Amino acid sequence: MADSPNCDLKSLSPLELFERVTEQGEKVRALKAGKAPKDEIDAAVRMLLSLKLSYKTTTGQDYQAGLPPRDLVLMNNGTTKEEDEDFVDPWTVQTSNAKGVDYDKLIVRFGSSKIDTDLINRIERAIGQKPHRFLRRGIFFSHRDMDQILDAYENKKSFYLYTGRGPSSQAMHVGHLIPFIFTKWLQEVFDVPLVIQLTDDEKYLWKDLTTEKAYEYARENAKDIIACGFDINKTFIFSDLDYLGTSTGFYRNIVKVQKHVTFNQVKGIFGFTDSDCIGKISFPAIQAAPSFSSSFPQIFNGKENIQCLIPCAIDQDPYFRMTRDVAPRIGQPKPALLHSVFFPALQGAQTKMSASDPNSSIFLTDTPKQIKTKINKHAFSGGRDTIEEHRKYGGNCDVDVSFMYLTFFLEDDDRLEQLKQAYTSGELLTGELKKVLIETLQPLIAAHQERRKQVTDEMVKQFMTPRKLAFEF
Amino acid sequence: MADSPNCDLKSLSPLELFERVTEQGEKVRALKAGKAPKDEIDAAVRMLLSLKLSYKTTTGQDYQAGLPPRDLVLMNNGTTKEEDEDFVDPWTVQTSNAKGVDYDKLIVRFGSSKIDTDLINRIERAIGQKPHRFLRRGIFFSHRDMDQILDAYENKKSFYLYTGRGPSSQAMHVGHLIPFIFTKWLQEVFDVPLVIQLTDDEKYLWKDLTTEKAYEYARENAKDIIACGFDINKTFIFSDLDYLGTSTGFYRNIVKVQKHVTFNQVKGIFGFTDSDCIGKISFPAIQAAPSFSSSFPQIFNGKENIQCLIPCAIDQDPYFRMTRDVAPRIGQPKPALLHSVFFPALQGAQTKMSASDPNSSIFLTDTPKQIKTKINKHAFSGGRDTIEEHRKYGGNCDVDVSFMYLTFFLEDDDRLEQLKQAYTSGELLTGELKKVLIETLQPLIAAHQERRKQVTDEMVKQFMTPRKLAFEF
Repeated sequence: MADSPNCDLKSLSPLELFERVTEQGEKVRALKAGKAPKDEIDAAVRMLLSLKLSYKTTTGQDYQAGLPPRDLVLMNNGTTKEEDEDFVDPWTVQTSNAKGVDYDKLIVRFGSSKIDTDLINRIERAIGQKPHRFLRRGIFFSHRDMDQILDAYENKKSFYLYTGRGPSSQAMHVGHLIPFIFTKWLQEVFDVPLVIQLTDDEKYLWKDLTTEKAYEYARENAKDIIACGFDINKTFIFSDLDYLGTSTGFYRNIVKVQKHVTFNQVKGIFGFTDSDCIGKISFPAIQAAPSFSSSFPQIFNGKENIQCLIPCAIDQDPYFRMTRDVAPRIGQPKPALLHSVFFPALQGAQTKMSASDPNSSIFLTDTPKQIKTKINKHAFSGGRDTIEEHRKYGGNCDVDVSFMYLTFFLEDDDRLEQLKQAYTSGELLTGELKKVLIETLQPLIAAHQERRKQVTDEMVKQFMTPRKLAFEF
Repeated sequence: MADSPNCDLKSLSPLELFERVTEQGEKVRALKAGKAPKDEIDAAVRMLLSLKLSYKTTTGQDYQAGLPPRDLVLMNNGTTKEEDEDFVDPWTVQTSNAKGVDYDKLIVRFGSSKIDTDLINRIERAIGQKPHRFLRRGIFFSHRDMDQILDAYENKKSFYLYTGRGPSSQAMHVGHLIPFIFTKWLQEVFDVPLVIQLTDDEKYLWKDLTTEKAYEYARENAKDIIACGFDINKTFIFSDLDYLGTSTGFYRNIVKVQKHVTFNQVKGIFGFTDSDCIGKISFPAIQAAPSFSSSFPQIFNGKENIQCLIPCAIDQDPYFRMTRDVAPRIGQPKPALLHSVFFPALQGAQTKMSASDPNSSIFLTDTPKQIKTKINKHAFSGGRDTIEEHRKYGGNCDVDVSFMYLTFFLEDDDRLEQLKQAYTSGELLTGELKKVLIETLQPLIAAHQERRKQVTDEMVKQFMTPRKLAFEF
């Protein structure tokens, strides 16, 4: 099939389009299952997204697997919407815009709230400290009920933090650190306990992995997480495969969530189809349950109904929209959320950094030389084609991946602003900007590696042992 | 709606019929949810079954919720099949035949094997004892791979037993005892360990119960089960809600089964629809997992791949057809099965005895007087309308519920045969036959109550504590 499938698609009937999308979906699954080359899979996924957009343009409805089009309202008004549409779910992030996903639109689509200056100022007052650069720079940009967390906090009512990771491989990249860096800061400034879920069961269900391998990855990833500097007395890290078999509260909450969510709902939220395994279909309840403190009777000393705050990337929001919908029906408080943007791939903000594509990623195990080579070779530049043009017209920070990464990792606001000015004016060349990034990332990753070396198996065991955390609610 | 819905259904199109079935299904659900009177629910269920049959007759396909008819082959050959069809799934048993379900047809439909004289003789040789009356009388009538269990047993290779119960109320009736009486006998004659699953999670998902109540019922039911006389050193009884949180092996097997079964499959096997909660959809894996010895690392001392034999009523077979399909794909041996017939309701063998209908059931808590009254008042009689007619034409043992119950509970084969002859010839009157049943059941239930009184909380705790069983494989 050609890369641009739309030329011949306009003549197709909704049902024919439906069948094309279904076929293409199966093709993508087959390619992934057969471990086809990344390029081939990417092309097939792009085609799938295009087909889905054509379907939506023609029918005015989202494609839903197994549900052929009906009650069609033809919207053939001559425009195609593809250019505007971003695709975001827990498994895929894709946009045609080099600036990345349109996050303002995502807030409207997901029904969350923007983290505005008022909220940032309020956080600053509550904690008596300068807010984290991720807040100052809109990297955590969206929230649900953060004001309620602050209301309660100001009245001396505390909360706990919950975040997580899907351990799909040993290799974590710098993008994976974002929620953990921010969560560590939240733990410090609010002085609250934290639970970290490693969804090894999810990875077993979604990937071609044994349970043993998924569990091994979970333990390896725990080392990188611990290396972020979490307080061992206030942090519990758990593997689902393990913790489900050691907790009297976790499964009870899972089954409560599972009773209150239908297949129709998870089909709508996550796009599951009738061909998906029942493990995937029921998994959302397992990511939901840690939002309720009664899932951790040992950790919170049997205390229930403690408010939960979840820092995570925005693609995880569907799980927690579902959780918040169920919570009141099972007598639990709704978790609050803080959403981050995605960490862009080296090749550009159209997709997020992915560990399964080594060229798109800077790994936490990379040497200084590898970091330098990858950035110089792959980091998408917003600079001009020639030095002359660059000096004359300046670079574009909005699409420049090196500059984006600096907004994540360079602490000094003034320096960042200077770099932006200099790059935009043409004074600073792409190679010079990349050099700043390399010199920022190299020591940061080296320091992480140093801390990780000091994480012993004994420490992992301690962090992963269910035990009362040092905090009274 | 009228009781006989078919008169006006023949003129409906397949799609109209599909919609009628869907509506009626929703009505049944609403009635059940609203705790409507039993009669009303029964009538609605009968109507639903009729509608499904009309749908099948018209379309040649089984009704599947959410899947409107397509590719129709009209089979309007003028006959309706309703009279021949029995409805059997884990939640409903219904037939129009007063003799009960046609079990020979069920064997063909389910693809199991009949327990024939050869197999019964082989069991007798293997154990060196007379086979249990349930085998002699065709009460356990069907099996899967029992010959393989015997092959292995004759070569000194042992196995373990697995059976269970859904604790939907405190009230167990005599019918509930059938699998336990037989399992106790199997445990004794083969000298093997046994695990008994109490699916309190299932009952929470299906009924209007809290998890606490379901768990309480599980513990109460455990007392009745223990009173059947199981060997405490070789028997482990577990509640799902509890054991899932105390076993390192159970959840791993659950998630393995869940990875290898799709929604399409459980839809086909159990009739789940898109409106069912994801807990129901994934539950079959929880009933499947105890078929694998690795679900019980503490119980079997870490030993895996021990062969499992499951004695159960035939309506539970769908769970284990699914389990046997998955087993080789997750590197586990297929469980073998022994299937029993249903225990008929007092009112007749068209349905099974149900605890939710007190008039259909003799409870394990009934007094001698209650037993007598219920049998005299409700037990469906195969006798004639008048004594004169009865003496002349004789009674019909095939539909007489008192006689059926005696085949379950009267140990003496000769006595049973005498009763049959005398009743069939008209020599024995209905009242006299009922008297024999009353005198058989009263001491049996009184003895059960006596043993149950002696079951202490400490014993329940011991039976339900995961521990190595006294058996070496």
